Amino acid sequence: MSYAIEPWQLRWQGLAVDQLHRTESTFALSNGHIGMRGTLEEGEPRGLPGTYLNGFHEQHQLPYGEKGYGYPEAGQTVVNVTDGKIIRLLVEDEPLDMRYGNAIEHERTLDFRSGTLRRRTLWESPTGRRVIVRSERLVSFTQRAVAAIRYEVEPMDDVQLVVQSDLLANEPIQSRSNDPRVAAALDSPLVNDFMTAEKTRAVLCHRTKASGLRMAAAMDHEIDVAGSSDVRTEIRAEDDLARFTAAADVAAGSSLKLTKYLGYGWSGKRSTPALRAQVEAALAGACQTGWDGLLAEQREFLDNFWQVADIEVDGDDQLQQAIRFALFHIIQAGARGETRAIPGKGLTGPGYDGHAFWDTEMFVLPVLTYTLPDAARDALRWRHSTLDAARDRAEVLGLKGAAFPWRSINGAECSAYWPAGTAAFHVSGDVAYATQQYLNATNDEDFDREEATEILVETARLWASLGHHDPHDGFRIDGVTGPDEYSAIVDNNVYTNLIAQQNLRAAADAAERNPGRTDATEDEIAAWRRAADAMAIPYDDMLRVHPQADNFTKHAEWDFENTPEDKYPLLLHFPYFDLYRKQVVKQADLVLAMHVRGDAFTAEEKARNFAYYEARTVRDSSLSAGTQAVLAAEVGHLDLAYDYLVEAAFTDLHDLHNNVNNGLHMASLAGSWTALVAGFGGMRDHGGELTFAPRLPDALTRFSFRMCFRGTRIAVEVREAEATYRIVDGAKLETRHHGEPITITADQPVTMPIPAAPRLERPALPFGREPRGR
Amino acid sequence: MSYAIEPWQLRWQGLAVDQLHRTESTFALSNGHIGMRGTLEEGEPRGLPGTYLNGFHEQHQLPYGEKGYGYPEAGQTVVNVTDGKIIRLLVEDEPLDMRYGNAIEHERTLDFRSGTLRRRTLWESPTGRRVIVRSERLVSFTQRAVAAIRYEVEPMDDVQLVVQSDLLANEPIQSRSNDPRVAAALDSPLVNDFMTAEKTRAVLCHRTKASGLRMAAAMDHEIDVAGSSDVRTEIRAEDDLARFTAAADVAAGSSLKLTKYLGYGWSGKRSTPALRAQVEAALAGACQTGWDGLLAEQREFLDNFWQVADIEVDGDDQLQQAIRFALFHIIQAGARGETRAIPGKGLTGPGYDGHAFWDTEMFVLPVLTYTLPDAARDALRWRHSTLDAARDRAEVLGLKGAAFPWRSINGAECSAYWPAGTAAFHVSGDVAYATQQYLNATNDEDFDREEATEILVETARLWASLGHHDPHDGFRIDGVTGPDEYSAIVDNNVYTNLIAQQNLRAAADAAERNPGRTDATEDEIAAWRRAADAMAIPYDDMLRVHPQADNFTKHAEWDFENTPEDKYPLLLHFPYFDLYRKQVVKQADLVLAMHVRGDAFTAEEKARNFAYYEARTVRDSSLSAGTQAVLAAEVGHLDLAYDYLVEAAFTDLHDLHNNVNNGLHMASLAGSWTALVAGFGGMRDHGGELTFAPRLPDALTRFSFRMCFRGTRIAVEVREAEATYRIVDGAKLETRHHGEPITITADQPVTMPIPAAPRLERPALPFGREPRGR
Repeated sequence: MSYAIEPWQLRWQGLAVDQLHRTESTFALSNGHIGMRGTLEEGEPRGLPGTYLNGFHEQHQLPYGEKGYGYPEAGQTVVNVTDGKIIRLLVEDEPLDMRYGNAIEHERTLDFRSGTLRRRTLWESPTGRRVIVRSERLVSFTQRAVAAIRYEVEPMDDVQLVVQSDLLANEPIQSRSNDPRVAAALDSPLVNDFMTAEKTRAVLCHRTKASGLRMAAAMDHEIDVAGSSDVRTEIRAEDDLARFTAAADVAAGSSLKLTKYLGYGWSGKRSTPALRAQVEAALAGACQTGWDGLLAEQREFLDNFWQVADIEVDGDDQLQQAIRFALFHIIQAGARGETRAIPGKGLTGPGYDGHAFWDTEMFVLPVLTYTLPDAARDALRWRHSTLDAARDRAEVLGLKGAAFPWRSINGAECSAYWPAGTAAFHVSGDVAYATQQYLNATNDEDFDREEATEILVETARLWASLGHHDPHDGFRIDGVTGPDEYSAIVDNNVYTNLIAQQNLRAAADAAERNPGRTDATEDEIAAWRRAADAMAIPYDDMLRVHPQADNFTKHAEWDFENTPEDKYPLLLHFPYFDLYRKQVVKQADLVLAMHVRGDAFTAEEKARNFAYYEARTVRDSSLSAGTQAVLAAEVGHLDLAYDYLVEAAFTDLHDLHNNVNNGLHMASLAGSWTALVAGFGGMRDHGGELTFAPRLPDALTRFSFRMCFRGTRIAVEVREAEATYRIVDGAKLETRHHGEPITITADQPVTMPIPAAPRLERPALPFGREPRGR
Repeated sequence: MSYAIEPWQLRWQGLAVDQLHRTESTFALSNGHIGMRGTLEEGEPRGLPGTYLNGFHEQHQLPYGEKGYGYPEAGQTVVNVTDGKIIRLLVEDEPLDMRYGNAIEHERTLDFRSGTLRRRTLWESPTGRRVIVRSERLVSFTQRAVAAIRYEVEPMDDVQLVVQSDLLANEPIQSRSNDPRVAAALDSPLVNDFMTAEKTRAVLCHRTKASGLRMAAAMDHEIDVAGSSDVRTEIRAEDDLARFTAAADVAAGSSLKLTKYLGYGWSGKRSTPALRAQVEAALAGACQTGWDGLLAEQREFLDNFWQVADIEVDGDDQLQQAIRFALFHIIQAGARGETRAIPGKGLTGPGYDGHAFWDTEMFVLPVLTYTLPDAARDALRWRHSTLDAARDRAEVLGLKGAAFPWRSINGAECSAYWPAGTAAFHVSGDVAYATQQYLNATNDEDFDREEATEILVETARLWASLGHHDPHDGFRIDGVTGPDEYSAIVDNNVYTNLIAQQNLRAAADAAERNPGRTDATEDEIAAWRRAADAMAIPYDDMLRVHPQADNFTKHAEWDFENTPEDKYPLLLHFPYFDLYRKQVVKQADLVLAMHVRGDAFTAEEKARNFAYYEARTVRDSSLSAGTQAVLAAEVGHLDLAYDYLVEAAFTDLHDLHNNVNNGLHMASLAGSWTALVAGFGGMRDHGGELTFAPRLPDALTRFSFRMCFRGTRIAVEVREAEATYRIVDGAKLETRHHGEPITITADQPVTMPIPAAPRLERPALPFGREPRGR
């Protein structure tokens, strides 16, 4: 059982209770502020229910067998908030439950253009009564605090129907922690502060016990029973439950239609009455817009998005669907986050405790920067809003400037294992990278002045204090962990050093560009440039490759031949110490450096390095395939690049990591865009210059992608022998095609021939680690 | 207030309640099997009570904020067992409590020759009645399961005296853990299995809740009131208390004399009835020997020991006392351990949870090997008895052979922080080193066949699987942690590699010597020799020193000038990441390599390396000073060596690390022996050859030391210009004096001139880190 292959939607036919944990994630709706997993309206059966408000979390103590100075004491975990999705149905005296009776027909469809999740179920109750249930659900892109559900029941016999629409707080869910204190902190995390219910409307306000955050959820309803005015309704509220009930006799072929409007809000500062007012206002707005109005706004928002961002893939329908699925979820994760983080799982599940990582800046934001730049800006504003926490963290660590956290919800470091957490200082360089990339792609001067310069300067200060000039090698950055999590606490990680180099230079430029916006001195700026110029980049003269960090290429090789498939991911079957000391790479590290700092490598170095690391990279991380696709395409392994694109694109749809129940992998979804646009499209932005080097893989007959750059929307169409660049909207664009300068104007598309790719032999991969995906 | 300076005892005059936490440790008695802290008989006031049975521990779950494969799940903590030291006194209606009334005279004396702790107190009760209380306590070296106390009260008025002698289980003590689960596991850890009390004798049997170990404690009494037969006694037992009570009217000038015999035993296998029988048998033996007999045996044992091991120091009485104090506690820790570990604190306190570390093999065992070799052998037999656990651990880690634990009570790894625990693989090489050293010093062929060969072979297998031949540098051992805990997860730690090299060669020799005792193949043996010959030893050609590991000398320098004294120990004020990436050394590492593998360095290298590391070593570990003394003396800094000797010798007596309340630092006590014998005596045993290179520091007029080697007991006496070597007992000895071969025979002492020491400039030490001690 699987998804139907259709270009603009994701449809699952049939019930498959044992697959609900997957579809709840893939069918999740979100606008970046509210997230709702794709659970059935009736609440059960279910895999893992989940309703999330971006940033709303509970705190708990982090346990340590042996403590160390500077270890974070408080962990944060996303909270499953008051569930407003629930609409239960009683058909005569039988509750609708798909595990009982007979689901004669059942399908659910996530529509990438309407931005809704639809359901159609023909159910026969255990006593033989049949009803058709249709629902459509949305989390509004246009009204940030609003979600809505249209729920329609059409009986095939004359029956009494009772519909119960709930707000349910403290839903019982199985603990995901094996630490009893953490489990206790997250068992019934919400404490009621306020409740009210009147007519069709109810509000519940809660707060968390330890983090002290407050939230409010409200619902209002419209009920319409065709051909009947005898509908009996009631509403009530308790501490953890508000319930609107409607009962009516409905004739065969007639229908009961319930429209449920939901308003959500939370705050760490505002009072309960203020939050109540906020959600009631949101509800009033939603009701005034009405269901049809919300649907229309939703579609318009998405029409606009697809116009800027759509990717067409000819020759692989399944990939076409997967790419749009990916873009749809990226936009859901980022659209209305507004100074909140974009978590690793978006708002699709509780994986990684709801934390945001560097994934945001290095994988998700490039997509948003070139498709919905305001969303990228808002995510960077979240980082900017956490600068105080990052400065505090740097101070605890004995450093200057700002050290952004490895994992966090509110900006405070939550990593309980510092070698793979705090030591991964590249996260601060990644934030700077994304900041610089956004600036360059938008020329957003306000952001440059108000936020970007401070981010760049504070992160540059971090590097200046973290590294040192050494007589042996130049400016060294020692004792850090790069992207590859199968190495840790290494010296001169090439990725880190190159990201730091760019960071230092970008900060120097920004400080000189906006002298009033920073207290950086001339000496400080000069020191940044000096450090950048002297940056140590290790090179192995014997093997003629870049070690991903000092000594890497001297380490023992991993015994791939004797590592069977069931020993992957390796970190679940081998100790860190063994992974760290050997040449086994979890995810693109030096290869990622060759993508984002491709300007620092020659073509020959790229080819040699790529082959070297391909043979040692196991892709136990979902972050890797997209990046490997990019470099594979660049050095000329188009088939391999295509395989990696497929792996990235199907990571969640085919549950390649067996954990999609915890939420979607935003970075992997984004990686499929990157594989296509930066991989086969050859899009690069080194030094601020946008360039392309497209090539068509054998598997496709054509592909096209769209993006915006400094206000200009462009479309690139790639065929086997030529590529066409077209302005969709905006001014002309100067760019390069395979190195050759071209100018595209609004009325003058440019078509260029594509040079033949070097047909290289496919590099050796570790035993058993061929790309997956189909 | 301080200790009186006397050559053969440690005496504290006056009460000083606020110093009890110190004197409880320094006055602790132990035979390596039973340990009793020096608490007052009446139980209170107290710092931290403690009675320990070597190996008797409770288990608890180790918590992790983020788990990793192979992390140990169970922690172990030494348990404060049933306290048999307690003897309470009621003088008329006033309990003797030193916090009330008036301690007119009070002194306690640890006697290094009698092996007892004596007390004399003249106490005036709040109501003005005076008594003299005298006690003497011993933990028997000759009867392993036995301790005894003589308690004598002499009233200065006619009074009624009531004496209560207890066995008290589950003594309430403040939790030392901030993890509630660990604290819970150790709060009242003992569960009663059996109790009995009859006449003057009582037995309590308990078991631990989680580890399921069983123990028994028994007491018997003799009571004697001079000039009175009217003594009323009673005895009773409850779950956690057995109490013998004696009441008598005692005339002024007369006395009440109570002799308490204690028997202790524990087992993980034997039943409660068997344990009861065991302690009752021990008691019967003790009573039969009697108090005077126990005293006589104790003195004879120690007379023998001092005859082999005594050190005389002329010109520094305080140091003389400190050195004998050190030797006395080393012998207490090791004498009767018998296939149990020698914990880092001996049995003097609960520090480090009662765990044994590599301290045993590299610091304590060299002393025992050359003074009480059977004790060294027994400690190595403990390691041998844990080989199965070490093999299991190696297998979990993906390695061959045996990986001994970083910290443990029963042989299973208990370190919850692997970069400073499991990664410190040198511990396995240290066990091999001590094994080889013992073999060489004793020619113990039984041990060679039965235990040593297996230890050497299994540890060699570890190295063979942990390292690899690399085209760049030879046989590399990557990703390990050396002795210096301010570095971790490094490549080619010189100490580790040199210890491994010796281990590999020793295993090859042992396997060839005892071919029937190992399944090692010829190929395997050849591979060990090949790895040893190719061992990578990094060297910095620019600075002309050995980096303690790859890259060390390229790391940033620590800013010592801006690190005030209150920021030490650094690990409590700076994050590991910062310590790890900089050139700051907690404890001798490369310098330790230059001591134990001095054959691998030239004299010039030693001098340059020593100066380099002196400037970067902060001695936040008590393991360091002794080793620094050895190398300082070797390269010619005699004054500095003396300062380090003083620091090592007074670590506990002057509580230099502010934690003597948790127990004594066995390695530091041992380090004072090493500083003297290997430092000023220049004793080395490289390649199995015993050699000397004595030199007298300016601060002394003469010193002498004794040791045994292959059954021959020798004495070395060192004066300014010459040294005399004398056979005390046994055959002739071939050795070297400052490189010159000499032969000492039973009737022919040899006196040799001492070449003048090079008078070198004192090397620079880190700001504020001069040796302490007085």
